[in-house]
Amino acid sequence: MEQRSESFRWPIRIYIEDTDAGGIVYHARYLHFMERARTEWVRSRGVALRSGLEENVSYVVQKMSIHFRQPARLDDEVWATADLVDSGRVWLGFRQQIIRQSDGVLLTEADVRVACIALDSGRPRAMPEAMQAIVQAKTE
Amino acid sequence: MEQRSESFRWPIRIYIEDTDAGGIVYHARYLHFMERARTEWVRSRGVALRSGLEENVSYVVQKMSIHFRQPARLDDEVWATADLVDSGRVWLGFRQQIIRQSDGVLLTEADVRVACIALDSGRPRAMPEAMQAIVQAKTE
Amino acid sequence: MEQRSESFRWPIRIYIEDTDAGGIVYHARYLHFMERARTEWVRSRGVALRSGLEENVSYVVQKMSIHFRQPARLDDEVWATADLVDSGRVWLGFRQQIIRQSDGVLLTEADVRVACIALDSGRPRAMPEAMQAIVQAKTE
Amino acid sequence: MEQRSESFRWPIRIYIEDTDAGGIVYHARYLHFMERARTEWVRSRGVALRSGLEENVSYVVQKMSIHFRQPARLDDEVWATADLVDSGRVWLGFRQQIIRQSDGVLLTEADVRVACIALDSGRPRAMPEAMQAIVQAKTE
Repeated sequence: MEQRSESFRWPIRIYIEDTDAGGIVYHARYLHFMERARTEWVRSRGVALRSGLEENVSYVVQKMSIHFRQPARLDDEVWATADLVDSGRVWLGFRQQIIRQSDGVLLTEADVRVACIALDSGRPRAMPEAMQAIVQAKTE
Repeated sequence: MEQRSESFRWPIRIYIEDTDAGGIVYHARYLHFMERARTEWVRSRGVALRSGLEENVSYVVQKMSIHFRQPARLDDEVWATADLVDSGRVWLGFRQQIIRQSDGVLLTEADVRVACIALDSGRPRAMPEAMQAIVQAKTE
Repeated sequence: MEQRSESFRWPIRIYIEDTDAGGIVYHARYLHFMERARTEWVRSRGVALRSGLEENVSYVVQKMSIHFRQPARLDDEVWATADLVDSGRVWLGFRQQIIRQSDGVLLTEADVRVACIALDSGRPRAMPEAMQAIVQAKTE
Repeated sequence: MEQRSESFRWPIRIYIEDTDAGGIVYHARYLHFMERARTEWVRSRGVALRSGLEENVSYVVQKMSIHFRQPARLDDEVWATADLVDSGRVWLGFRQQIIRQSDGVLLTEADVRVACIALDSGRPRAMPEAMQAIVQAKTE
């Protein structure tokens, strides 16, 4: 996959907390990094998650297909990217990558489907208007 | 500190997720282990945390003094102990240890003060009756 | 997918550390649970990870396709299953599920490909004999 | 405790991964934040942790006394501070705080003692010269 020039990207530093006894980043941590990038992307467009929770709106990962190509290591700086590539009334489809900053090497890539749910019932619900506006602006 | 024969103890296995690039358990993980032991101790006396949350009751660690003596490592089995040693109307004082099962060596010990709070306001509140009964049974 | 009667399964309790502000288990935690099940499966057949590390052998997740169907919640008890469904000279293919114990509901399922690597170089290497024997016993 | 004007401080954003079902940051996470601040402080003075590991030098938390005063919440921005207040040949003593950026409220404070160890033996060892120079520059 070519990296698109317009990808949203967020810088992340690898700390000792992210590593494991194999000397590399623990695989589940990349999911954290990707969620940070998605969070910062919506924040950069004016939507904060906490106000969502207060209005009974939450977002949950529904499906994920992920390829761990090469490991990140302690002290590395990486980019976590987030591109909205598809969406429906109640879900968002992201294409995401983890890229090592020093040499641009692709470490991890994933397709992630996030669903909008009602916090109390856990059931899918239409995204709030502010989020719909973001999605429309992106995919038009 | 001598280990009291009546200490509540909970077995915990060390997984790769618990370790870091130094080859040992990441220090903050011991706080997780100690919370598991406190949780299992109250559960063993009939109190579940989730029903607490549903009744607007939560428990938060207020203060902690911890001594990391020796590290646990991948595949180790440890005991996490929890002894209620003091309490007030809105708080519990625990003495806790992490002990390696294979040779009984004390790895970590801590004094932990836990406060009962109202989930919505975050303010201290009197413990529910079920918890008060546990405390009374223990300290009498 | 039908659950096979012979699935290896490992019991896991959900603690507050596993949850997030949405009131459910944080999605990346299921990857931890699945790794615990894989680890316990190989342990049940006599292979420990730490001795592997000492012999320059490590196992890393290479690819993962995961479907988060329903969330686990605080205090839940779940089974994490691990079935070896395919393998090569340097990799293992697992089918895994997270199942709620109280009612048998399937919460999460995943296909996971794990590679055997040399700890120092990070390059794929043939699995040690003990692991090859486990794989052969399983797939014959 | 008054905040000293010269405190080293590092900005940290609270993500959903940092929170728990009580709606606040999970208590053990503050230890991660404090370690990030210590790491960035030594990095700002030219010492990287990974090169330390490659030279058989590691740093481990030995003792910690921590007061969780008020919780951080999702989307909050906090400062994690790190002040070296004392040291010996094989250890460093830090005073650390977590401060909410929006209003300067002190959320958590801790005294942390970090030991320098040999990575292979786990035994205390004199700090490398580069680190000793940092310590001297700070405490003179």
